[in-house]
Amino acid sequence: MYIVCMDMEGIITPEIWIEFSEAVGIPELALTTRDEPDYDKLMKHRMDLLNANGYGLKEIQEVISKMDPLPGARAFLDDLRSFAQVVVLSDTFTQFAMPLMEKLGWPTLFCNKLTVDNEGKISGYVMRTQGSTKLSAVKALQSTGFKTIAVGDSFNDLAMIRASQAGFLFRSTEAIKKDNPDIPAVETYEDLMKGIKTILG
Amino acid sequence: MYIVCMDMEGIITPEIWIEFSEAVGIPELALTTRDEPDYDKLMKHRMDLLNANGYGLKEIQEVISKMDPLPGARAFLDDLRSFAQVVVLSDTFTQFAMPLMEKLGWPTLFCNKLTVDNEGKISGYVMRTQGSTKLSAVKALQSTGFKTIAVGDSFNDLAMIRASQAGFLFRSTEAIKKDNPDIPAVETYEDLMKGIKTILG
Repeated sequence: MYIVCMDMEGIITPEIWIEFSEAVGIPELALTTRDEPDYDKLMKHRMDLLNANGYGLKEIQEVISKMDPLPGARAFLDDLRSFAQVVVLSDTFTQFAMPLMEKLGWPTLFCNKLTVDNEGKISGYVMRTQGSTKLSAVKALQSTGFKTIAVGDSFNDLAMIRASQAGFLFRSTEAIKKDNPDIPAVETYEDLMKGIKTILG
Repeated sequence: MYIVCMDMEGIITPEIWIEFSEAVGIPELALTTRDEPDYDKLMKHRMDLLNANGYGLKEIQEVISKMDPLPGARAFLDDLRSFAQVVVLSDTFTQFAMPLMEKLGWPTLFCNKLTVDNEGKISGYVMRTQGSTKLSAVKALQSTGFKTIAVGDSFNDLAMIRASQAGFLFRSTEAIKKDNPDIPAVETYEDLMKGIKTILG
C-alpha cells in the first residue's frame, strides 16, 4: 500500500515567505529552502528581519488569508485523494498553513509550530522532530507498512524522496535537478499525476 | 503537536459487515471486532460465509454504495479538521472504505487491502503490518513527533488508546467500558469534541 507525501510550498501552495516579502517590500524575506539549505539559519534570519521591521504573526496571517493554493492544486489533490492516501509534509507552521489547507479541502498536514510572544511577535519555532521532519515522517509511514511516494522541490525534500520507494521533483530549481538527475523531474500536475499513477499501477 | 487517530466503523461510519449481513440476511456476518477479538479468525469466518453463499466483492460494494456515514460524523470531522490533524485508523479495506471516505470529505485513511480472485471472490486480505495495525500507526505517528489522541470502540482499539497520550471509548460495549474504567467513555460527538478540545487546550 502506497501513501503519497507531498511537500506544500511550491508544490500545492505558493511560497508563503515570498508572498509576504512582496507584500511588505522586504526582498530578503524571499529566501526559501531552495536558496538556503540550513533551515535554522534561514528561520533565524527571517525572525530577525520581521522583528527589525515590526512585523508579527498577525501581519503575516493577513497576507496568507489573501493567498490561494497554486492554480490546479485543488483539482490535482481532489483527484489524487479519490484513489490514493495523501499526507502533506511541510516545514511550515500550523499558524501559517491552516487557511491554505482549508482551501485545499483539509488534506492531512504534518508540519511544525511557531511560538509567539505576548506582543504577537514570532519568538521562535518548534520543529516536530530533530533533523529532517519530512524524512522522519516518511520513515514513520514506512514503519507502519506503507510504501511512500514523495514529491518536493527543495533541498529539504531530497532526503524524503531518496528514502521513498518513488519520488518526484516538482517545479524544482535547475541546480537541484542537475545535481539529482536520477529523480524524475516534472513541471505540471498532469505529468505528476501520470507518474504517480504509473507507480500505483 | 497532537494528531487525532479515529477508528472508522462504529465511530464515523456504520459497521460495514453488520449492514451487509442485514442486506443479504446472513446473521452470522454481523459479528465484528467488538464480538470476536481475533481478527484473522473473524475474517476467515466472514470469507467462508461469503464464498458459501456466492457473494463477492461486487455485492458488498453495492451495499456499501448505499451506506452513509453515521449521522453527525461529517459535521464532527469537518469541525475537528479545521483546527486539528486527523487520521482514520481502521482494519477495514480500501475496497470497502473509499466510498465512505468520499462522503466524509476524504480524511486520510490508514487501512488494509483485500485480495480478490479473477471471479471477484474475496480470496484473502493483506494487513499493512503484523500485529495491531492501529497500534503500529500510533507508534509511527509518535516516532515523527506527534502526541496522539485515539478514539475507538472495540477490542482492537484498546492498544492504540493505551499507547496514546489520551484516548476515548466512543459508543463502546458495556463489557469493554466495564473492563476499561480508566478510559473516558463518551456516547455523543458533542462530548467527544469537548474531550478532545480539553486535551488540545
